[in-house]
Amino acid sequence: MNIAFVLINTDMGSEAEVSKALREIEEVKDVYGVYGVYDLVVRLEAESMQQLKDAIGNKIRRLKNVRSTLTMIVIE
Amino acid sequence: MNIAFVLINTDMGSEAEVSKALREIEEVKDVYGVYGVYDLVVRLEAESMQQLKDAIGNKIRRLKNVRSTLTMIVIE
Amino acid sequence: MNIAFVLINTDMGSEAEVSKALREIEEVKDVYGVYGVYDLVVRLEAESMQQLKDAIGNKIRRLKNVRSTLTMIVIE
Amino acid sequence: MNIAFVLINTDMGSEAEVSKALREIEEVKDVYGVYGVYDLVVRLEAESMQQLKDAIGNKIRRLKNVRSTLTMIVIE
Amino acid sequence: MNIAFVLINTDMGSEAEVSKALREIEEVKDVYGVYGVYDLVVRLEAESMQQLKDAIGNKIRRLKNVRSTLTMIVIE
Amino acid sequence: MNIAFVLINTDMGSEAEVSKALREIEEVKDVYGVYGVYDLVVRLEAESMQQLKDAIGNKIRRLKNVRSTLTMIVIE
Amino acid sequence: MNIAFVLINTDMGSEAEVSKALREIEEVKDVYGVYGVYDLVVRLEAESMQQLKDAIGNKIRRLKNVRSTLTMIVIE
Amino acid sequence: MNIAFVLINTDMGSEAEVSKALREIEEVKDVYGVYGVYDLVVRLEAESMQQLKDAIGNKIRRLKNVRSTLTMIVIE
Repeated sequence: MNIAFVLINTDMGSEAEVSKALREIEEVKDVYGVYGVYDLVVRLEAESMQQLKDAIGNKIRRLKNVRSTLTMIVIE
Repeated sequence: MNIAFVLINTDMGSEAEVSKALREIEEVKDVYGVYGVYDLVVRLEAESMQQLKDAIGNKIRRLKNVRSTLTMIVIE
Repeated sequence: MNIAFVLINTDMGSEAEVSKALREIEEVKDVYGVYGVYDLVVRLEAESMQQLKDAIGNKIRRLKNVRSTLTMIVIE
Repeated sequence: MNIAFVLINTDMGSEAEVSKALREIEEVKDVYGVYGVYDLVVRLEAESMQQLKDAIGNKIRRLKNVRSTLTMIVIE
Repeated sequence: MNIAFVLINTDMGSEAEVSKALREIEEVKDVYGVYGVYDLVVRLEAESMQQLKDAIGNKIRRLKNVRSTLTMIVIE
Repeated sequence: MNIAFVLINTDMGSEAEVSKALREIEEVKDVYGVYGVYDLVVRLEAESMQQLKDAIGNKIRRLKNVRSTLTMIVIE
Repeated sequence: MNIAFVLINTDMGSEAEVSKALREIEEVKDVYGVYGVYDLVVRLEAESMQQLKDAIGNKIRRLKNVRSTLTMIVIE
Repeated sequence: MNIAFVLINTDMGSEAEVSKALREIEEVKDVYGVYGVYDLVVRLEAESMQQLKDAIGNKIRRLKNVRSTLTMIVIE
């Protein structure tokens, strides 16, 4: 299993909307709103690195109101 | 009492306007303009974590010209 | 349930040792080694904010070879 | 009155000790332990910029177990 | 004399335009384009902290295409 | 030969488009999409520092959808 | 081929020594000294993610005088 | 003329000592103590990039109590 964490900053005031959209992505397993530098912590799982890449690059990063992302690939 | 500090970056030139709007929020106890990486230091107090969360997420972060926030929850 | 994520930088070369020590802490539910700015992603759960505070301040931050921590409290 | 905030990172596990030492400094008015990137938020007041400079440079930054500081001078 | 450095990030491609506008500000003594995290290094001098504050807050930060600023007040 | 690395953050979802545009710049020798804080790693080579400066300031930084750049000049 | 970039900060004054040690690691293909936030840019290639992980975690990060690393895995 | 700025963090409490040592370096033209993220701002001038490189890598970065440096090469 390929796992990644994505730390997300959203546009101000759109955390709930982005969380909802994230939860509809198949590879997204957990979404947490957090206090601090980042707004959301997202955990993803995928069958392959290719699928993980696709979920981050083509799904998460293209969501409306996602301002920036910091991706951390989990070391197997 | 639940306390938090929020460090705010505003849109350029709108520090005074944002400070004024912040001071009208019930949970906001102090607002300071500062030199450095951040533009404003805000101290909040609330009866519950729920109220604190609401003040930060639904009031401060939805203010016009607030560009980004860094929240630090005070350890009781 | 009170949840927090702690992003950890360890001393160079001691990731495995720190991971092992983290897993022995009751409140620590998950430990992931990751590529990027941080070395470890840790998820904690506790019955109370007090217990969470204690786990982070008195257990995790006092572990040998933990160089720095960034704590993100999950918004309930 | 000259005011400043100092955000402090302490050596792991020495937050309580540093907090105690900070509270004994005349110019230090408030010390808060916080979750996030920084460990302590300190508010100082002094009669002059010279006194503020002295409190930060010669007192706070020379305390044992203070690892790094980020000073924000309040704009009068 | 009150001195400050302001590190500026400009909108992409507008470094020259911003540099030109900065040089027309009375308190601005030097402007350097630099490689790295920041785009411009600006040195200011003013008779008083009040004048310095005014130059940074009301002149520099209100310039078109100035995206963000990091101000460092020189310790006398 | 003068060499530089430029770490680029693009607008969300436009990595492929920016990569393509970068590859058409003469001085750009390599473009890599990466996971983490930055989106693209670009390596440039030029005959002179002047040419390198021109490629970064007038070509890369003026590309559409390039949000921010961090330039690292290679020490000869 | 699995590729990664590692940005390294070394202990002050030991850049040359660390560069030399890096060049003796099989997976390390390029080492550049750079001006800026980071001291060295390293490019690695490996047959598998496992080999890449091993080179970063067990070789680079265990080198003497390597103070911190930021790893960016190249998206295939 | 080749110019660079170096932003320095010193060991806590050794700012004065480092400033003094910096001022004895031929290429160092100005040293300022500052409030904020960095402790000292240093401006260097040299006849060649090679001399600049030497001043930063072999003189400044080897000074006792210099903890970290961020170098910004001025664009001619």
